[in-house]
Amino acid sequence: MSGRLYGVGVGPGDPELLTIKAVNVLQAVPVVAFPAPLTGESLARSIAAPHLGDDKIEIPIRMPIDRNRFPVLAVYDDAAAQLGDHLADGRDVAVLCEGDPFFYGSFLYLFARMADRFPVTVIPGVSSLTAAAAASGAPLAALDDVLAVLPATLPDDLLAARLQAVDAAAIIKVGRHLGRVRRLLDRLGLAENARFIEHATMADEMMAPLKAVNTEQAPYFSMILLHKRGAAWQ
Amino acid sequence: MSGRLYGVGVGPGDPELLTIKAVNVLQAVPVVAFPAPLTGESLARSIAAPHLGDDKIEIPIRMPIDRNRFPVLAVYDDAAAQLGDHLADGRDVAVLCEGDPFFYGSFLYLFARMADRFPVTVIPGVSSLTAAAAASGAPLAALDDVLAVLPATLPDDLLAARLQAVDAAAIIKVGRHLGRVRRLLDRLGLAENARFIEHATMADEMMAPLKAVNTEQAPYFSMILLHKRGAAWQ
Repeated sequence: MSGRLYGVGVGPGDPELLTIKAVNVLQAVPVVAFPAPLTGESLARSIAAPHLGDDKIEIPIRMPIDRNRFPVLAVYDDAAAQLGDHLADGRDVAVLCEGDPFFYGSFLYLFARMADRFPVTVIPGVSSLTAAAAASGAPLAALDDVLAVLPATLPDDLLAARLQAVDAAAIIKVGRHLGRVRRLLDRLGLAENARFIEHATMADEMMAPLKAVNTEQAPYFSMILLHKRGAAWQ
Repeated sequence: MSGRLYGVGVGPGDPELLTIKAVNVLQAVPVVAFPAPLTGESLARSIAAPHLGDDKIEIPIRMPIDRNRFPVLAVYDDAAAQLGDHLADGRDVAVLCEGDPFFYGSFLYLFARMADRFPVTVIPGVSSLTAAAAASGAPLAALDDVLAVLPATLPDDLLAARLQAVDAAAIIKVGRHLGRVRRLLDRLGLAENARFIEHATMADEMMAPLKAVNTEQAPYFSMILLHKRGAAWQ
């Protein structure tokens, strides 16, 4: 009997935003893997740390990347092989994922390489999308609203066309695109009520009206939320 | 000192998908409110029940509605007044919300009526969006995908236009629109890889390829997920 691969959403950053189910899985599995930088601490691991104990086999998946660019696929090939050995030997493996594993998560790369050979269970987590909305103090969407999730990596013309066609939007992966996207939203008349949120639910969470943000770059974990109704939720 | 109003996301249905933070808030507050049908049990309350204890003041917000239609606003006026009395007396109040409070949640109605008078904290929850993706066994979106959340209540021409402009979509509030939406997706050539999920993470969870679903109606808590890449996640 092979082990089971768990994709475990650890939520947006606050360790209290892990679910009870995620905690239960993390306590039960013998092997835990997580994305990590080439040197230094893994964010996903640090979020889950209070629930890991000290008897796990820990496997950092270290990536030599600017997180805004395409990761090095060979790293995932190696990780899939390493996790596959544990699974083949009957050990369950949990892969920690910031936010939710199936919402723009890096778990995708392991899922694509392993789901045909091993049983997989995904434990959904609180996504950065709803965490950022909570931090911003305003609803994402309601009633018959069309809500789009738009990567800031898209070119201006495509972003503009998509923004025209929705009631509300979350622009993710803002990072080095902050200045360009802010100018685009200004031109489209959508900057007025847009909110910028950085590191939602983390110790250094920051929220500001987009109009008040004047830097060109933002951290990877940042988001712009906007709703065409503005603040009129009544 | 007035009390604090908490909008607490209790997640999609499985009581283990509450966050640690939600559990902590529920254990601390003296007053808990929740949406409920005119007679019978509240789903939100039943999800949170293991964590409520028996010393709370419980306030069901009973609504005479078909949940696909606009709720009766007077019910929220009354609830806001009732919760406002507790807050004015210094008691913290938690409002239970299925999924996440700011993601198409009924909490919006109370938020709009109370946020200008009382301090509000939203505890984000696992949304039906990511729970349904986990149940379906396939990612929602990745990389530079544009993902749209589309209420099935929209007319065919609007749904079709929005679907053309995205890589992936979650069609929510399917309910009595199931047959119509399935025929629309068929006409657009998007039915092939679409997945239908009902009551994700609940005891009676059901997932099927949309092609295999031949009823005209579905429960309120159902969703159609589709991705134009289909199953090609490599």
